[in-house]
Amino acid sequence: MFRCFSLITVWVTLFGLSSLLAEPRARDLGVPFSGEPGPLNAITDVPGVRVGHQTLIRGEGDWIPGEGPVRTGVTAILPTGMDYRPVFAGWSTLNGNGEMTGAIWIEESGFLEEPILLTSTHSVGAVADASIAWRRERGYHDAEDGFSWASLPVVAETWDGRLNDMHGSHISREDVFAALDGAAPGPVEEGNVGGGTGMVAHRFKAGIGTASRVVEGGYTLGVLVQANYGRREDLTIAGVPVGREISNYMPELMMTSQEGNSIIVIIATDAPLLPHQLKRISRRATVGLARLGGFGANSSGDIFLAFSTAEAERSDKDDVWQVPMLENTAIDGLFIATAEATEEAIVNALVAAETMTGINDNRVYAIPHERLQSVLRDYRRLEEVAQ
Amino acid sequence: MFRCFSLITVWVTLFGLSSLLAEPRARDLGVPFSGEPGPLNAITDVPGVRVGHQTLIRGEGDWIPGEGPVRTGVTAILPTGMDYRPVFAGWSTLNGNGEMTGAIWIEESGFLEEPILLTSTHSVGAVADASIAWRRERGYHDAEDGFSWASLPVVAETWDGRLNDMHGSHISREDVFAALDGAAPGPVEEGNVGGGTGMVAHRFKAGIGTASRVVEGGYTLGVLVQANYGRREDLTIAGVPVGREISNYMPELMMTSQEGNSIIVIIATDAPLLPHQLKRISRRATVGLARLGGFGANSSGDIFLAFSTAEAERSDKDDVWQVPMLENTAIDGLFIATAEATEEAIVNALVAAETMTGINDNRVYAIPHERLQSVLRDYRRLEEVAQ
Amino acid sequence: MFRCFSLITVWVTLFGLSSLLAEPRARDLGVPFSGEPGPLNAITDVPGVRVGHQTLIRGEGDWIPGEGPVRTGVTAILPTGMDYRPVFAGWSTLNGNGEMTGAIWIEESGFLEEPILLTSTHSVGAVADASIAWRRERGYHDAEDGFSWASLPVVAETWDGRLNDMHGSHISREDVFAALDGAAPGPVEEGNVGGGTGMVAHRFKAGIGTASRVVEGGYTLGVLVQANYGRREDLTIAGVPVGREISNYMPELMMTSQEGNSIIVIIATDAPLLPHQLKRISRRATVGLARLGGFGANSSGDIFLAFSTAEAERSDKDDVWQVPMLENTAIDGLFIATAEATEEAIVNALVAAETMTGINDNRVYAIPHERLQSVLRDYRRLEEVAQ
Amino acid sequence: MFRCFSLITVWVTLFGLSSLLAEPRARDLGVPFSGEPGPLNAITDVPGVRVGHQTLIRGEGDWIPGEGPVRTGVTAILPTGMDYRPVFAGWSTLNGNGEMTGAIWIEESGFLEEPILLTSTHSVGAVADASIAWRRERGYHDAEDGFSWASLPVVAETWDGRLNDMHGSHISREDVFAALDGAAPGPVEEGNVGGGTGMVAHRFKAGIGTASRVVEGGYTLGVLVQANYGRREDLTIAGVPVGREISNYMPELMMTSQEGNSIIVIIATDAPLLPHQLKRISRRATVGLARLGGFGANSSGDIFLAFSTAEAERSDKDDVWQVPMLENTAIDGLFIATAEATEEAIVNALVAAETMTGINDNRVYAIPHERLQSVLRDYRRLEEVAQ
Repeated sequence: MFRCFSLITVWVTLFGLSSLLAEPRARDLGVPFSGEPGPLNAITDVPGVRVGHQTLIRGEGDWIPGEGPVRTGVTAILPTGMDYRPVFAGWSTLNGNGEMTGAIWIEESGFLEEPILLTSTHSVGAVADASIAWRRERGYHDAEDGFSWASLPVVAETWDGRLNDMHGSHISREDVFAALDGAAPGPVEEGNVGGGTGMVAHRFKAGIGTASRVVEGGYTLGVLVQANYGRREDLTIAGVPVGREISNYMPELMMTSQEGNSIIVIIATDAPLLPHQLKRISRRATVGLARLGGFGANSSGDIFLAFSTAEAERSDKDDVWQVPMLENTAIDGLFIATAEATEEAIVNALVAAETMTGINDNRVYAIPHERLQSVLRDYRRLEEVAQ
Repeated sequence: MFRCFSLITVWVTLFGLSSLLAEPRARDLGVPFSGEPGPLNAITDVPGVRVGHQTLIRGEGDWIPGEGPVRTGVTAILPTGMDYRPVFAGWSTLNGNGEMTGAIWIEESGFLEEPILLTSTHSVGAVADASIAWRRERGYHDAEDGFSWASLPVVAETWDGRLNDMHGSHISREDVFAALDGAAPGPVEEGNVGGGTGMVAHRFKAGIGTASRVVEGGYTLGVLVQANYGRREDLTIAGVPVGREISNYMPELMMTSQEGNSIIVIIATDAPLLPHQLKRISRRATVGLARLGGFGANSSGDIFLAFSTAEAERSDKDDVWQVPMLENTAIDGLFIATAEATEEAIVNALVAAETMTGINDNRVYAIPHERLQSVLRDYRRLEEVAQ
Repeated sequence: MFRCFSLITVWVTLFGLSSLLAEPRARDLGVPFSGEPGPLNAITDVPGVRVGHQTLIRGEGDWIPGEGPVRTGVTAILPTGMDYRPVFAGWSTLNGNGEMTGAIWIEESGFLEEPILLTSTHSVGAVADASIAWRRERGYHDAEDGFSWASLPVVAETWDGRLNDMHGSHISREDVFAALDGAAPGPVEEGNVGGGTGMVAHRFKAGIGTASRVVEGGYTLGVLVQANYGRREDLTIAGVPVGREISNYMPELMMTSQEGNSIIVIIATDAPLLPHQLKRISRRATVGLARLGGFGANSSGDIFLAFSTAEAERSDKDDVWQVPMLENTAIDGLFIATAEATEEAIVNALVAAETMTGINDNRVYAIPHERLQSVLRDYRRLEEVAQ
Repeated sequence: MFRCFSLITVWVTLFGLSSLLAEPRARDLGVPFSGEPGPLNAITDVPGVRVGHQTLIRGEGDWIPGEGPVRTGVTAILPTGMDYRPVFAGWSTLNGNGEMTGAIWIEESGFLEEPILLTSTHSVGAVADASIAWRRERGYHDAEDGFSWASLPVVAETWDGRLNDMHGSHISREDVFAALDGAAPGPVEEGNVGGGTGMVAHRFKAGIGTASRVVEGGYTLGVLVQANYGRREDLTIAGVPVGREISNYMPELMMTSQEGNSIIVIIATDAPLLPHQLKRISRRATVGLARLGGFGANSSGDIFLAFSTAEAERSDKDDVWQVPMLENTAIDGLFIATAEATEEAIVNALVAAETMTGINDNRVYAIPHERLQSVLRDYRRLEEVAQ
């Protein structure tokens, strides 16, 4: 049976401080992290970066392939906000069982020239199409005559088929436009939102999470994850074997053994880094992921993309730019920040996500906050939090 | 003005020998090539490989963005025909200003698990969506319950915006299904067909071309290209500076200087090669391309994908296969075959393509066959052809 | 002042059970690890793998560049013992500030055809030369006439300049031959031996460490590290912030700030994996490293090489082998084993190493075993050990 | 029998204009090339680049392994002359059956920090050692206290075992110092010199060759090759099948079938390119190589290294440099220049090399200049040369 179909679309809430205050984040619970976060502890601490979510939650009950229930969405990240500008970028994978379109040109050119869109596996095509249309309609393309212009959209995905009707093409062009047009600076909603709506990590409900670090030199590095990876028994928070301690709250699913498991990590920084340095940065996402119990399972698409918003200037010479570059010898702080912010962003996703029921009444539980605190306390790892 | 809109869809012609006999191929004109081709001199000489084209040619006159004229299409390559089976694969690029979705997972897994689809740049999303739908509807997926199944489609593109209304989403799901369902063994149509419909190489009309080689050990290697790259002055056929000799027949285009230029090269072989060996094979596409005057321009998406149809067998041990592997020391013949077949496939695309008029009455000329013969003769490079 | 120069060469002790029993390893102290180790908990649990160390400890007192004191050595790993046979291999880096000669050919061919030698940074050339000589003198080369034969030796390094006179060429051809000829199955000495003699990790004395895992399907995977990386404050053992808890026992060094920091991880398995799968395996060394507090510092050469000893068979067809291949879907156990064994091998290196005084009386301390146990106990992570 | 052993060491001849005028280069013979060369048509047209050769030709007659005859050497390329400065660099391979030490760190850091040395396969270790010693003795290292300094030398090789006693360690530290200290601006000796002394290409005597191009924007790009690859039948010069036309003059060798075949291509430019752009440049060496008949045989180590001498400046901010960068859209001229200069450098190596007799009286013939001219004339490809 496929019960009543009601559209509950959670729109992007700009500066939704009230709801954010209501929703504790990981460090509000006393989970200890290293390093100093930026003011929002979010990827949007990097000046110019905007994030928008479009969340699709519709229907409940039996799965009717192609119809619903729907638990999906799309998240947009604009590296330089609405002022379109190519930025240096680099990427890598821990395990490449996934998709990020546009990756070949980023690797070749060293530039990210497109908004980043995160979504569900089988919506990549539709979202890519919409991304092209959005750039065209909003005037974000280079060719003056609109003639020879071509776009290679950047769309990454993880698999939400446990909770969502992946056989339907639920994400429309309007949804993608909404995520892009609604992208905003300020706090970033986490958990069951945008591309993360139907995602699961370490068999707890997960989704979108974010965090940031400020490092020596005054640079900010922010991370946003769409987390959908990992086994329960491996979950390790602050070094504590949380997954083995909390072995209940397991998903109620009818599943095959071979789950899709993936995590997309987007890393933004205002530090002046060249493309090959950003590739180096991207590799440190693995460090944060590993500390939580990730290992890059065969079924996992662990794709990491880093970009720098530092601006170059035209030089006196034709076709030549003056590009700022941080010395390699000063890069360690950013490596560490990447690992730390990736780690915290994932825990934030877990803490923010709420229990969700999807297709066939499949249910995935949120990590219970008090149990988490209790386990950390047992291992002397819970921090006191100012109330 | 946008004149009469008539649908002229060139369907896949299975075993269209009569038309093929009527259309000379490069070696019919006396262009000399090295190596021994297979019976069809086509990628379909590799047993099991099927090719299907869906060609969209509609309307003429002024460009009405989003409406037409339409000069585009899609080409499908099924590595093992309708008997779906993952095959080993490897890929590389000369210049990555282009897209091939699914590339990250091929690199990671060593397997090509999807049909290959070639199309126009801005149709990648729609074609990818259709590829997922086709696999689902035709039952080509693994998961028995249809539940956790996910597909990472393989769609590559070149840019047909000189002749085609790239702003329209002209390639429908039905078109992609037609290319896939119509994929057949036997001769392969070349020139203005399928994904190659609106393509241009060395400023002559080009598109799809194919060729094959039989090498020591009895292995067959076949190549199919979607050719859309290159400057006129660099065109070199059989070592002869054809492009400098034939400097007229230039396209009549209103164009920006920064043209999209690309070539997709698909390489099939029945030789038993492992994924890393297939990556090595793919790199030899550059050798054939370079001999014709290609150099991997910055605006070019030169992406090369090789796969092997050799079959593995389950061993006695769980999860273990017995995989045949050609020794590295026996691989040179296949390297040379790749270079030769790539070279011939491109010239075949040039020879087969016919003059086309597209948006805004832009016109791109076919290479004039007699002039080509005459130039080759002048440089003592025309071969006598049995009549 | 450069005091008395005495040669103390620690030879390979085959099956040195008595000394090994005397020296506790990490799990003997109650450090908890996941997974099931092989009988020796060493890389030599993989059948056929042999390890040999040649350790050079000579002189003490002031550094006389080019003379001493000497705290260095070389470690040899023979993938298939004295029965020379190429094996499939793959490698990757977390941070490539280091050297592994022969890497380009391993990447291209998919084969490791040479013994692996680990040594000090500036001895790579001498050790490579000696490796060529050893293969020639021991008859381990292919060409029957000895004419066209060429060798691309595999030598990796970390930097022992804190304790060792790196300006001297102390490792002789005889030393390399001794390590190679002395390579043996059985227990592997750890700590201040072989290539690890002068190495330091997390600012404790470190060096060579090893561990193994037995996984589903009955496969064994073994790891050997030459550990020389990491900051103290990052050291995390079993999730416990050991480095912050034990902030004393810091090295007494006259040092520049920019330390050489590196770790070489060699991974052996009898699981039948293809080269691209072994590259995947090698990437999981980062997972183990990250859990201990490594992050791939800019000054670090973190190079990981994996090989499989599984045997192929000639087929009926010329130049074709039958190669066993584990399915990708069965690889996760080996990924996890790589992470776990890397983690344990590093801790074993730390636990086995003894305080060492080198050039200029620089002193690097061993990690104090009882303090380590005490800290783990405080965080409820010390395991009870059967006495 | 091993006849009289006489030392004939050909020293670097600085500005050896007279000998160079006496020795025709490829374009002096009327071989046509595209593009505009720099004043010297050599890698040294790039300001600051210096080249030095040390050539070892000793003994004749029977091969006494370890003794002689000797036909080998070493070539040094100093990117910024004696004013040591790290430069951006990138590399790639067509076929990696060879060695270039230091490659891992260039890939990671984006910097070339060492002189480049080209030599014989089994001398890599000795030359690497000497390179470290030279940097130390000449004061070219960073660490002020000489303490923590470490060097990762860059040494590439091809195989001269047809003519040279590869079993001997003939290249001494003094030889390497001589090549480095003797490195000079100005004309570059070609053919049987330095690392190219015993090399063979397309079964003609080859070795060192160089060429350069000046491109739009006033940038210079220079190439130096150590050419030792290729089959006779594939040799194609200016599109003419020279190898098939000149099928005699084959080497008189006792050889196994599996020859070592390789080419090292070093590319220097003063164009301001970032590391990832230099990697792109390096890939275009394949284009030049392919046009001559190269295809990257399995036994071939085709390794290409590109560097830029453009200078960065310290910015106002700590650890940040201002780096000039040519736009990607302006890079095509340099891609074409790389292909053209690689092609011409190889032909220059062939034209300059003289017939050589080596071990066991093995003889490899120079390409006969008049025959080459005659063949080119037959195919209407010989250019008139001003006398």
